[in-house]
Amino acid sequence: MIYLTRKIEFSAAHYYHNPAWSPEENARVFGKCANLKGHGHNYVLEVTVAGTPDPVTGMVLDLKELKEILEREIMQRMDHRHLNHEVPELAGKIPTTENVAATIWNLLQPKITKGKLHRVRLYENPDLFVDCFGDGR
Amino acid sequence: MIYLTRKIEFSAAHYYHNPAWSPEENARVFGKCANLKGHGHNYVLEVTVAGTPDPVTGMVLDLKELKEILEREIMQRMDHRHLNHEVPELAGKIPTTENVAATIWNLLQPKITKGKLHRVRLYENPDLFVDCFGDGR
Amino acid sequence: MIYLTRKIEFSAAHYYHNPAWSPEENARVFGKCANLKGHGHNYVLEVTVAGTPDPVTGMVLDLKELKEILEREIMQRMDHRHLNHEVPELAGKIPTTENVAATIWNLLQPKITKGKLHRVRLYENPDLFVDCFGDGR
Amino acid sequence: MIYLTRKIEFSAAHYYHNPAWSPEENARVFGKCANLKGHGHNYVLEVTVAGTPDPVTGMVLDLKELKEILEREIMQRMDHRHLNHEVPELAGKIPTTENVAATIWNLLQPKITKGKLHRVRLYENPDLFVDCFGDGR
Amino acid sequence: MIYLTRKIEFSAAHYYHNPAWSPEENARVFGKCANLKGHGHNYVLEVTVAGTPDPVTGMVLDLKELKEILEREIMQRMDHRHLNHEVPELAGKIPTTENVAATIWNLLQPKITKGKLHRVRLYENPDLFVDCFGDGR
Amino acid sequence: MIYLTRKIEFSAAHYYHNPAWSPEENARVFGKCANLKGHGHNYVLEVTVAGTPDPVTGMVLDLKELKEILEREIMQRMDHRHLNHEVPELAGKIPTTENVAATIWNLLQPKITKGKLHRVRLYENPDLFVDCFGDGR
Repeated sequence: MIYLTRKIEFSAAHYYHNPAWSPEENARVFGKCANLKGHGHNYVLEVTVAGTPDPVTGMVLDLKELKEILEREIMQRMDHRHLNHEVPELAGKIPTTENVAATIWNLLQPKITKGKLHRVRLYENPDLFVDCFGDGR
Repeated sequence: MIYLTRKIEFSAAHYYHNPAWSPEENARVFGKCANLKGHGHNYVLEVTVAGTPDPVTGMVLDLKELKEILEREIMQRMDHRHLNHEVPELAGKIPTTENVAATIWNLLQPKITKGKLHRVRLYENPDLFVDCFGDGR
Repeated sequence: MIYLTRKIEFSAAHYYHNPAWSPEENARVFGKCANLKGHGHNYVLEVTVAGTPDPVTGMVLDLKELKEILEREIMQRMDHRHLNHEVPELAGKIPTTENVAATIWNLLQPKITKGKLHRVRLYENPDLFVDCFGDGR
Repeated sequence: MIYLTRKIEFSAAHYYHNPAWSPEENARVFGKCANLKGHGHNYVLEVTVAGTPDPVTGMVLDLKELKEILEREIMQRMDHRHLNHEVPELAGKIPTTENVAATIWNLLQPKITKGKLHRVRLYENPDLFVDCFGDGR
Repeated sequence: MIYLTRKIEFSAAHYYHNPAWSPEENARVFGKCANLKGHGHNYVLEVTVAGTPDPVTGMVLDLKELKEILEREIMQRMDHRHLNHEVPELAGKIPTTENVAATIWNLLQPKITKGKLHRVRLYENPDLFVDCFGDGR
Repeated sequence: MIYLTRKIEFSAAHYYHNPAWSPEENARVFGKCANLKGHGHNYVLEVTVAGTPDPVTGMVLDLKELKEILEREIMQRMDHRHLNHEVPELAGKIPTTENVAATIWNLLQPKITKGKLHRVRLYENPDLFVDCFGDGR
């Protein structure tokens, strides 16, 4: 079993807001992230696929195919987008790194058919990242 | 003469839009950056000050003082902010890396009084950055 | 289950010395690290907490609270300190990356009460790091 | 149990070619990597050894010894080499990151006798890496 | 005056060989790089253009246009290529970082017409890089 | 003219102390760095040499020779050393990044005889570095 990881980056805006709370409560819990004008990040996404290398090609999966999946499912949905307003899968959720990573897992898991999605790691910045393993761990 | 550089990071949202143009023209020139919902970046800022080390302290300038200037002039103005809507110095300008870097130069230059501001380098992402030297080069 | 990782840095001095050995034996086993004048590192610490995101906040734990724990338990104890002389939890131990990481695990584990401490990773430099999972692996 | 990781780098050339296929088929499957003139990478190798720190030295294993193993087994075999033509263990295999990582695992596993080889991670470039855990995972 | 830098990466093989010398002399001067089987690198190229931001767009130059120039002049010529055998501009030269950087300068300088090429920086690996400023410095 | 830069790393301990001041004054000016037990850093040193590539070798200077100079002048003097107590050239000086960089310039400048030392850049950590150009700028 080999685990292959591909890294991509996307740029997005977001803010944290619970509509059931007062502005003061939002500010208390979410700090600077509660600013409704929004801010943003260069997100770094690492996608890990587990599998056995094909004896003919030596590859766990076709990297061109993985690139197309990531382009279609992630880049077109999230790159240069506002996560609070433009990503239907995040509607009604606070776009924390935790929730965005879990959403990416759910988007990618059914599309990875050669090998098996093992891990989604999402960096909000170089000092904060989240790992999601689905049910597998 | 010694050049001392301090690096800080801030997170901000922005988009590119020229109100004199049609949506099509904005999209043609600015591409994905024209999305009016906005996107964002982890900006990395390098501030370089030139000076002669004080023979008593061995330092070009007091790093605590520089930190306070950067906190007051840059972090409070731009961190977790929307550059199109919340930074008065950028009003009416397209917040390109070029314009943001020049704005930062203008904000910092008069505040650096021990030594002399030499360069402002601003990374929009690890693959794109801008250097501003004021009139000095 | 989501794994959230926060990265911090601290600067410390140390040396390796076994008082039961001769200087020659210390030099043979520990090489340059045996220099009793000491040397030092910019340590990079990654702390990973496992948990389920709170459905209301979307967060595994409150990052402000984690920051306070790391400030109190790690930064005040180890940042700008000499690991051989100023950290009581390391007294009588050789402050190898292995021992420092295990000490950090023991300091943090009881303090993480929202979610569960999953991993402590400590880089002595970019080319050498240690992972500690407590009893969990 | 502690996991210690040492990172090294080596530079090598390679190309992807299946001699049973036509040039067109090789180009279709392997893209730019099919160029028989070859290209190359700065490979980054992370070797992780699991063990219990020796109570006397505080170390999982002797880093000088690990360095010698890596020099002898990996650097002399692969650094400044052409992976298709100069590494006997890769003869007849396509030198994908997957196959090179598995080969490195097989070379190192019997040589690590203090502690136990836990993981080999091989970066072909900063955006693509492979993890190999042998049978252990 | 603003200096804008774009970073790209390419992968290439090369070796160092002076045909006027004996194999021993080549090995003595060029060390491991003299291996005629070749080795390779992930080259990182930083291209800096100096100019005044257009008051209408806020940009020194059109980044899409720069990307096309870099794709056509550098990526198609050098990415996944063997620098000794496939780049006509390097024919008869030893493809040292110095010579490759100067060749890139000569390729790009006439193509940059909005603004002015200021610097080409080429990393052979993270620990070795070369800067070329043409005649301008 | 080509500028070639080689990067090396060393690990050292230091503290900041002016013996003419009271402990309180030292703490006020130098903050955490005033701790007399010392702390330390992984210093990163970039050494830039300017020259014209030799037409026969394609190289500004012999990298093996540069490596020997850096080993002899810098690594043996400063790696795994205490900068306050073991480096004669720093005696009586506060080992700030500024002073250490200037000392490195003075050590290397007379030793670089093929080409000309252009710049010494010293990182104390990834967020703070100092450039020294001697008299040349």
